[in-house]
Amino acid sequence: MQRYFVDSIIEGKVRISGDDVKHISRVMRMDIDDSIICISQEKGPFLCKITSLSGEEVVAEVMEHIDSNTELPVNVSIAQGLAKGDKLDYVIQKGTELGAYDFFSFTASRSIVKWDQKKAVKKQERLQKIAKEAAEQSYRLKIPEIHPHQSFPELLKKMKSFDAVLVAYEEQSKMQENSQFVNVLTSLKSQQSLLVIIGPEGGFDETEIQALIEHGAITCGLGPRILRTETASQYVLAAISYQTELLR
Amino acid sequence: MQRYFVDSIIEGKVRISGDDVKHISRVMRMDIDDSIICISQEKGPFLCKITSLSGEEVVAEVMEHIDSNTELPVNVSIAQGLAKGDKLDYVIQKGTELGAYDFFSFTASRSIVKWDQKKAVKKQERLQKIAKEAAEQSYRLKIPEIHPHQSFPELLKKMKSFDAVLVAYEEQSKMQENSQFVNVLTSLKSQQSLLVIIGPEGGFDETEIQALIEHGAITCGLGPRILRTETASQYVLAAISYQTELLR
Repeated sequence: MQRYFVDSIIEGKVRISGDDVKHISRVMRMDIDDSIICISQEKGPFLCKITSLSGEEVVAEVMEHIDSNTELPVNVSIAQGLAKGDKLDYVIQKGTELGAYDFFSFTASRSIVKWDQKKAVKKQERLQKIAKEAAEQSYRLKIPEIHPHQSFPELLKKMKSFDAVLVAYEEQSKMQENSQFVNVLTSLKSQQSLLVIIGPEGGFDETEIQALIEHGAITCGLGPRILRTETASQYVLAAISYQTELLR
Repeated sequence: MQRYFVDSIIEGKVRISGDDVKHISRVMRMDIDDSIICISQEKGPFLCKITSLSGEEVVAEVMEHIDSNTELPVNVSIAQGLAKGDKLDYVIQKGTELGAYDFFSFTASRSIVKWDQKKAVKKQERLQKIAKEAAEQSYRLKIPEIHPHQSFPELLKKMKSFDAVLVAYEEQSKMQENSQFVNVLTSLKSQQSLLVIIGPEGGFDETEIQALIEHGAITCGLGPRILRTETASQYVLAAISYQTELLR
């Protein structure tokens, strides 16, 4: 059944506006009495029945609460070094499917692309839309937040608010360092927060790695193969799901 | 250091022809005495020094064998239901990075795209090239083979040659089935073979699932979120790497 995130549910009624109205009436061609699932990020998913449609608004009545939890037991934030082309789109779409809690992007010294303020704001809006669509499609109960693009020093300052911080470091993969990722994962408790930092195409330079370590990050390998920058977050999130949702 | 797969190493000499010649001389602008890593799929990786270059051929001398293994301890074959757009390109590129042994593609009843014989052959060549490039970039010792595109009944016949066969089945994910994937993974021994079958965008229909089960496949969920068809193989391969390379 089609799923839509909604802002609020008041007195058993949901009011949907914006792009979703077009999706419900024109793309899905739904009508009065058709059922949809409306997800309030505070209250969870509800089975609803459409009671009225217009060009601007769809109103639906709540039928019943759906008992399901599709969120990862740990809150995994992904900080992705700015990479070329549409790689960030891809990191957000796949990372949302795989359960990321939220996303940061930052400029590293080896980032080839640069974003000015105007471009960064436009990109953030676009990425937030990708996250919403991927969250609906993958049955998430939460839309991962896309934080404003930041500098590397700003990222360093953010680090202390997390329970653990990992840096995917390809030099560790080359040296077959296999234990740090497992150690951190198996020590995390439910609802704790983990920040995973991933460099741009060329990886981090030595100064950046030193700064990350000084600010409390643990460097880790992700198996013996060298992953592209846009693949690393997917490895991390799939492994975390396997460890925390399937193995436990 | 730049890596190239080579056909054979004879008497300490490697002869490279084809597209890699252009890559070495024009893209990388390398010259005599520059070092490259040449990987023979039979003998492994070797540090080599270029001794001659021409428009048609690069000859390099073997300096030393490199002791490294970047292949997954189990041989994981991915069978992907034909999906729209460039999704198969993406499955091959990411799956190669993540360690897949080889790839099958097949037409399922809900596959929207259809390939005729001519298109299938052309696609196979293109996908094999993507696999080679991704294998070099990710430090693989083997280029995953892209098998000729096949029908669903042909896929069913192939199944008996594997030690285990899993089908990613979204109905199992919705029902929070979490144990089958772990059971199969933890029971596999080194060098055993696992075939993972993934449906097209709309998933498998009931008849197909029944046929797969009758031919020995085990259906499994991949966590509680619903993954797109092109994301499922990445979840599987990352989880297998985590289980067999990091946890063990």
